[in-house]
Amino acid sequence: MSSESLVVAVVGATGAVGEEMINVLSERRFPVGQLVPLASERSAGRTLDWQGEEITVKTLTDTSFDGVDIALFSAGASISETFAPIAAAGGTLVVDNSRAFRMTDGVPLVVPEVNADALKCESKIIANPNCSTIQKVVALKPLHDAAKLKRVIVSTYQSASGAGRDAMDELREQTVSLLNFREVKTKHFSRRLAFDSIPQIDQFESDGFTREEHKMIFETRKIFGLDDLPVCATCVRVPVFVGHAMSINAEFERPMTLEDAARLLGDAEGVVFHEDPNDFPVAADAAGNDDVHVGRLRLDPSIDNGLVFWTVADNLRKGAATNAVQIAEALLGMGRL
Amino acid sequence: MSSESLVVAVVGATGAVGEEMINVLSERRFPVGQLVPLASERSAGRTLDWQGEEITVKTLTDTSFDGVDIALFSAGASISETFAPIAAAGGTLVVDNSRAFRMTDGVPLVVPEVNADALKCESKIIANPNCSTIQKVVALKPLHDAAKLKRVIVSTYQSASGAGRDAMDELREQTVSLLNFREVKTKHFSRRLAFDSIPQIDQFESDGFTREEHKMIFETRKIFGLDDLPVCATCVRVPVFVGHAMSINAEFERPMTLEDAARLLGDAEGVVFHEDPNDFPVAADAAGNDDVHVGRLRLDPSIDNGLVFWTVADNLRKGAATNAVQIAEALLGMGRL
Repeated sequence: MSSESLVVAVVGATGAVGEEMINVLSERRFPVGQLVPLASERSAGRTLDWQGEEITVKTLTDTSFDGVDIALFSAGASISETFAPIAAAGGTLVVDNSRAFRMTDGVPLVVPEVNADALKCESKIIANPNCSTIQKVVALKPLHDAAKLKRVIVSTYQSASGAGRDAMDELREQTVSLLNFREVKTKHFSRRLAFDSIPQIDQFESDGFTREEHKMIFETRKIFGLDDLPVCATCVRVPVFVGHAMSINAEFERPMTLEDAARLLGDAEGVVFHEDPNDFPVAADAAGNDDVHVGRLRLDPSIDNGLVFWTVADNLRKGAATNAVQIAEALLGMGRL
Repeated sequence: MSSESLVVAVVGATGAVGEEMINVLSERRFPVGQLVPLASERSAGRTLDWQGEEITVKTLTDTSFDGVDIALFSAGASISETFAPIAAAGGTLVVDNSRAFRMTDGVPLVVPEVNADALKCESKIIANPNCSTIQKVVALKPLHDAAKLKRVIVSTYQSASGAGRDAMDELREQTVSLLNFREVKTKHFSRRLAFDSIPQIDQFESDGFTREEHKMIFETRKIFGLDDLPVCATCVRVPVFVGHAMSINAEFERPMTLEDAARLLGDAEGVVFHEDPNDFPVAADAAGNDDVHVGRLRLDPSIDNGLVFWTVADNLRKGAATNAVQIAEALLGMGRL
């Protein structure tokens, strides 16, 4: 098959991430011969622009993947659980952005800058990690290679877009209501997000952690291949539209000078390192680009071999769409497409 | 002197914290015989309501403290550096909310629930800690008493009001501008705060930490009397009007069950413990009251004897005004007034 003629499906094409997937496929000139946008019946029939051509979103069905080379899924875990195995059984490679298969044995969980080697396997399904996990491991990777991770503590500042397009609308509507002294409605978030921080993302598990926090713990271990790496996460939604940020305290087995850490981050693939403290990155810097921004690097004075820093990335792009397309590029580069 | 006839000055009476100080003096029925509101020349002449009576704000001068029993200062460090020693030399007790004297040897730095004993001293000047430090030590105190603190890591979610009334206006104006596609102006904050998080509070020091982060490290040690306690802090401004929150990872010398920690927090003075994960506290819960709210308590799976939790408090009240008035109450109770 010529790579120029790839048939690429996007499942959840009308969602916040699906739309970015289509943007990123175009921007990065992925060799799409035919784009097949798929969505639920509710959204099917809408049209979207693909390189100057108007194409119609089709309803996702059991036969949607006939002739499809690779499908990028971002329509939630239950859709992936039902349709990814159907696609894979028919020979379609699947890059799945949901949590459905991330922790499944034999399914690689991949951030190309970190563990592209995991794609050398038989699995037709490749899992795309959680948006916050992606930026965390991209920033930690060069430091881990140099000094070996020992413990990671993270607190996040995550944007509304991580909960989808309707959640972004809810933040805007709540903000307007508050500024106009009108009643505030909550639907997607458990509490008012406008002008407040919500220390809950996804549901609570029996140990008091949220599912999002579990993802950041277990996915980090799987991606680094460190089954027992001590990780703790507190995930917090903040009233920001796009761009997740996090405060990371990382402890290493071996010492590293601040200069060494700065050099490693400055040279790292996928990282834009902000060395000047006053040039710290914020969500507005990250929105719309594919980089993981790292700044506020300091020696952690509370522990030997510790660093503390701040990261920001566009959760819809590097945190989801871009990473999925990078996985597709890596599969293509390896001859799996 | 009868405590019913105390002459109480508030320096910075027209500021966000000064106004709360006057509210809290009234609410807590502090025995004020005469209130002396003081401010800069710019704000002097304004009137304010004190228990049904209209009183005029006077200009702060060298002679403002004649006959004043106790003065609560909240007008910035340079005002305190100039006028607190003048007041103290004249026999006035000073409770100072600025950073001016917090780390000065011999000046007690007090959170009454934690170290009221430090008030048993000669110093006429008592320092009120940084707003974030106060809620942190109130939450840590019962746990420290039971299991002895070994290391503390904190990431904060601090509101605009910590930077004063004009900063709150700036957040509101920026938000309105963004929602109306108008140009956004920044003045008090180094970057746009509306719909973003800013990982900078106060100026940067040579080690890359901000002054606010240094306060949280050094003030915590002084309050607990643990000169070498390992502490790391990352302080972040979020687009919230009132109420600071923080994510705290605390490690202890001795083991503690989750049940024990919950019981200790539930019984602790000044703490409202939110045991049900779904009942996590947010800034909206804290604004306007004097409690330190603690929730999301979990065993930290990344370390032995570790706990991780979330706290929220009104930074203008328990983080500033209420704590200052509580210090005044403690001084009164000890017969120092």
